[in-house]
Amino acid sequence: MKTPVCVLGLGLIGGSVLRAAAAAGRQAFGYNRSADGMNAAIADGFDATTELETALTRAAESGALIVLAVPVPALPALLDHVRRLAPECPLTDVTSVKAAVLDAVTAAGLQGRFVGGHPMAGTAHSGWPAGHAGLFEGAPWVISVDDDVDPTVFSTVLDLILDCGSIAVPARSEEHDAAAAAISHLPHLLAEALAVTAADVPLAFALAAGSFRDGTRVAGTAPELVRAMCEANWLYLLPALDRIIELLGDARDSLSAADSVAELVNHGHAARTRYDNFPRPEIVTVVVGANDWRRELAAAGRAGGVIRSALPTLDSR
Amino acid sequence: MKTPVCVLGLGLIGGSVLRAAAAAGRQAFGYNRSADGMNAAIADGFDATTELETALTRAAESGALIVLAVPVPALPALLDHVRRLAPECPLTDVTSVKAAVLDAVTAAGLQGRFVGGHPMAGTAHSGWPAGHAGLFEGAPWVISVDDDVDPTVFSTVLDLILDCGSIAVPARSEEHDAAAAAISHLPHLLAEALAVTAADVPLAFALAAGSFRDGTRVAGTAPELVRAMCEANWLYLLPALDRIIELLGDARDSLSAADSVAELVNHGHAARTRYDNFPRPEIVTVVVGANDWRRELAAAGRAGGVIRSALPTLDSR
Repeated sequence: MKTPVCVLGLGLIGGSVLRAAAAAGRQAFGYNRSADGMNAAIADGFDATTELETALTRAAESGALIVLAVPVPALPALLDHVRRLAPECPLTDVTSVKAAVLDAVTAAGLQGRFVGGHPMAGTAHSGWPAGHAGLFEGAPWVISVDDDVDPTVFSTVLDLILDCGSIAVPARSEEHDAAAAAISHLPHLLAEALAVTAADVPLAFALAAGSFRDGTRVAGTAPELVRAMCEANWLYLLPALDRIIELLGDARDSLSAADSVAELVNHGHAARTRYDNFPRPEIVTVVVGANDWRRELAAAGRAGGVIRSALPTLDSR
Repeated sequence: MKTPVCVLGLGLIGGSVLRAAAAAGRQAFGYNRSADGMNAAIADGFDATTELETALTRAAESGALIVLAVPVPALPALLDHVRRLAPECPLTDVTSVKAAVLDAVTAAGLQGRFVGGHPMAGTAHSGWPAGHAGLFEGAPWVISVDDDVDPTVFSTVLDLILDCGSIAVPARSEEHDAAAAAISHLPHLLAEALAVTAADVPLAFALAAGSFRDGTRVAGTAPELVRAMCEANWLYLLPALDRIIELLGDARDSLSAADSVAELVNHGHAARTRYDNFPRPEIVTVVVGANDWRRELAAAGRAGGVIRSALPTLDSR
């Protein structure tokens, strides 16, 4: 039988994990702090409660994989309950920053049972009603390969990721955060800044079409979600902001002095072309638990490698 | 009978205008400097030549509307031929900057027959093969209402825009350019800068999903096209760049000093929400050629007004 899943927090991501796990035939149950989210989940036919203690006791009894799906600031209090009621359960999360979550888990003494995760999927909407079982289909889902990662818990978390239809990308937490700053948090701030800049120009909204609509789409995300992910990742977002301000400043000076934006445009086009041609080789040979397996997976992920089906483990060889 | 159309330059936009005009039942013929573009057009069943003199003589004889669809640097030489061979023809353009084109037309002494235009449509691809008759369907297409605009030429150009399936937005050239800097040229530079920033971060391309793909899509545009439109509009692009560098710098400082990006995110979300709800009232009452008609159209366009069918003229009342 597949490992049951206990999802703590039934927002867009947590709610979609609950649905996807149930759709994959697992026993899946959830906890949500507010009655609204719980009631919406129950109305859709899912197993949910607002009683954290009930959920965690059940998780401990069934050996469920606990999925932390709450904002970072809510983690310490939640982890305190997990340590008290379900300290032996395998543990993962779906938060958009990884180092801060790992720190909170380590502070709670639960790092030996924890393998972090981050599904790179989402919409501009939030809450239970915005989720669906297919949200993660085909999307990259980061799985942590930090130093404390346990092989058995890793395989348990990987199994859930694959059940959700995602492609797993192994990564160390701090490398994930640096990448997320560049490809997710920075684009959100650019979209906000572009929307503000255009709003001040008469006629701009009247003419806005493709590149503006695309470039500002994520500015439609709820401000508190954008703030939460950007502010939690300030350590890596700051150098990314510094870099792009430098690039734009150089382009500005070159446009002003020499009527040219050639350098930025040529480099940008080359970078986008590299992205379009970025290889996604499948990782199949790394044996989970073997010597150096975490380092090998981190290197493979960095090179574009993805996991599309269960990896061999030491026992299964 | 509808006014014939003579398109000079059969790239993505010019080639699509030729197709759309022919699809609307007009006599439509084109000129292209290179034999490649001409041959591609002829192979697709269209009427094209590499002989500029032939095209312009035919335009003069048939009273065709001449559509300038070449890059800004090629305009002075082209306009010299127009003045010599077809000085009485109505004249428009499809260039992404309007003040520089108006200057070139005025320098050639042709401003009395000229009403500028800019279809706000395009793809990341270029050249005749990338075009199609439906490219402008539903897209805003700016039509100039500068001081020299002649009512009859205006109605002739408007007729072509509507035939292409577009929604006409009346605007003064300099206001168009300021708006285009904010909603088109600046987003292109942001996409380039974002692609360059991410390319330096290991793992970034491996994790890149929705917001990065959207945010860098236009960085796939041919560098020479991005340079041409950004550099031709340097006068309005510079203040837009200054403004966004300032916004990003303020967000950077606030993130560094107070762990907060609240101000930028809240303003950005509010601006994007305003854009999503921007009204598009139809302009129906302005009489082309009546007292103050150009000023009235400019004001209506600024407020979001669009033209969806032919406007009344002084003679038609």
